Amino acid sequence: MKKLINDPHDVVLESVTGFGRAHGDLVRVSTDPLYVVRADAPVRGKVGLVSGGGSGHEPLHAGFVGRGMLDAAVPGAMFTSPTPEPVQAATAAVDGGAGVLHIVKNYTGDVLNFETAAELAEAEDITVRSVIVNDDVAVEDSLYTAGRRGVAGTVLVEKIAGAAAERGDDLDTVTAVAEQVVANVRSMGVALTACTVPHGGRPSFDLGEDEVEIGIGIHGEPGRRRVPMAPADDITDLLLDPVLEDLALSRGEEVLLLVNGMGGTPMSELYVVYGHARRRLEDLGVSVTRSLVGNYTTSLEMQGASVTVLRLDGTLTELWDAPVQTAALRRGL
Amino acid sequence: MKKLINDPHDVVLESVTGFGRAHGDLVRVSTDPLYVVRADAPVRGKVGLVSGGGSGHEPLHAGFVGRGMLDAAVPGAMFTSPTPEPVQAATAAVDGGAGVLHIVKNYTGDVLNFETAAELAEAEDITVRSVIVNDDVAVEDSLYTAGRRGVAGTVLVEKIAGAAAERGDDLDTVTAVAEQVVANVRSMGVALTACTVPHGGRPSFDLGEDEVEIGIGIHGEPGRRRVPMAPADDITDLLLDPVLEDLALSRGEEVLLLVNGMGGTPMSELYVVYGHARRRLEDLGVSVTRSLVGNYTTSLEMQGASVTVLRLDGTLTELWDAPVQTAALRRGL
Repeated sequence: MKKLINDPHDVVLESVTGFGRAHGDLVRVSTDPLYVVRADAPVRGKVGLVSGGGSGHEPLHAGFVGRGMLDAAVPGAMFTSPTPEPVQAATAAVDGGAGVLHIVKNYTGDVLNFETAAELAEAEDITVRSVIVNDDVAVEDSLYTAGRRGVAGTVLVEKIAGAAAERGDDLDTVTAVAEQVVANVRSMGVALTACTVPHGGRPSFDLGEDEVEIGIGIHGEPGRRRVPMAPADDITDLLLDPVLEDLALSRGEEVLLLVNGMGGTPMSELYVVYGHARRRLEDLGVSVTRSLVGNYTTSLEMQGASVTVLRLDGTLTELWDAPVQTAALRRGL
Repeated sequence: MKKLINDPHDVVLESVTGFGRAHGDLVRVSTDPLYVVRADAPVRGKVGLVSGGGSGHEPLHAGFVGRGMLDAAVPGAMFTSPTPEPVQAATAAVDGGAGVLHIVKNYTGDVLNFETAAELAEAEDITVRSVIVNDDVAVEDSLYTAGRRGVAGTVLVEKIAGAAAERGDDLDTVTAVAEQVVANVRSMGVALTACTVPHGGRPSFDLGEDEVEIGIGIHGEPGRRRVPMAPADDITDLLLDPVLEDLALSRGEEVLLLVNGMGGTPMSELYVVYGHARRRLEDLGVSVTRSLVGNYTTSLEMQGASVTVLRLDGTLTELWDAPVQTAALRRGL
């Protein structure tokens, strides 16, 4: 294992501390318990948005803390849910009196720990709602999940709900917007290589020199099946077909197309995948009106990509276009 | 070799075409000859900025085309200089009557081909100036270079000169600003793994399971030496020490610190490197007033990072802070 780290057990703390130094204009970092909040938190009268989960998926979630998106991110250990304590502390730190929304990826540990944190926060008279993101169509249950997993669609939930909160929507409205995104977003991914968790020291699974894993989870959890390596267009079809089947788009609908890198794949390859996915959608009479291509929900250095499609309407498009000022996503402001 | 590509010889064209589709609000793509220009090019009365070079370093350069940065990027084949023809065509496409500045990384092929393109453009009555970026302190000459190589510091030249052009500075002033950045920026990088050029089919060099290459070039050219894998803080010192020695900073000076990923390194590791480099600078009494952390000048899927330090003054800081609207760097607007 070769990594730019010191002690494997310090990597999350050192990394988040470095992140806080690099982006001091956007965020503040609490190291004990460990969480990241926007620099001006709490914002009086604004609904607070908190997300979090295991580390190793950067820029998710800390990279999305700032004006127009998350108020707080709570990083757990690598690929490990944060405990309730930092989630509760982050919730209290961003409560501006209008309530707090937890955006939780659907993994058993995350769901339980955010639930406990919400109960603790409610005991302190903070109103908390939760939205569970489960956009991954690959498998119904998996190693760490009952039901579908939450993957790259989470970024879209955070951006769009964040814009709703920023413009002053109340907790019920922000929650409803987040649920609308969850109901209309679907993803599926592929791994070309495994990744290595620092304290594990070796790859989390084995993949042959000439095979890829279709439907991979963002922790390297098994997907649907292994297939021989194939041209990018064919692999993109294997990701896009189940997404389209599940989303049941009609001609004339508008979508956002996100091609997400797993961390170790060159940008040039992501744009090849994007080009083919977009042509496929256009052939179906679906209009790709918004796009995002890059490493947004990663699995450390894993090579691979995921394709996410979000059905848009006027409201979601307007909220997507709203200004945002975070380390990993910036527009306007 | 496992890559998300179709025919290895089509990857650049397919990728740039996908890029153009994804970012149609920012850029236009010409496929024959192949170049990318900002959507509103040419901008009447504004100095045009053109850069380019071999592909495989994305987001450099196409990711930096847009308001406040480059007017055009010319992608060559993978790790191969573009020929004079597309450079000349891009130069003509962005000429708004105020002249064009070529920003060229110091590689023999790039320098020659941009020179020829400049002569051809001058024959069409376009005034062209050139700035050669040579920020890599690792080696004096190398496989493809006479003199120092141009690496991640190029992004800073493009951003700062782009801001000067955007505010209406004339060709001499924009050129002088670019030269000021070149004179004050230094970089050095490390590779943990090699990368594989698609049409090559296998890694461009061999690196043992427990060694890293200090001073690596962005095409995998040899660096200063191979050393055993070591903690991130030690490796960061091996990169930063030669940079600091060459830059000869004094206490009280202000700098921009860029930690650049080579493409396959997780963000979490880049922030570990950033944290240590920043502490080192602060221990010297140098103030890190601006920061950039991420994959900006890559070598396909290579794992590794580079550290870049730019000495700032009031002018450079103001130009760095100016709005920019490109696929890979966005602020304001």
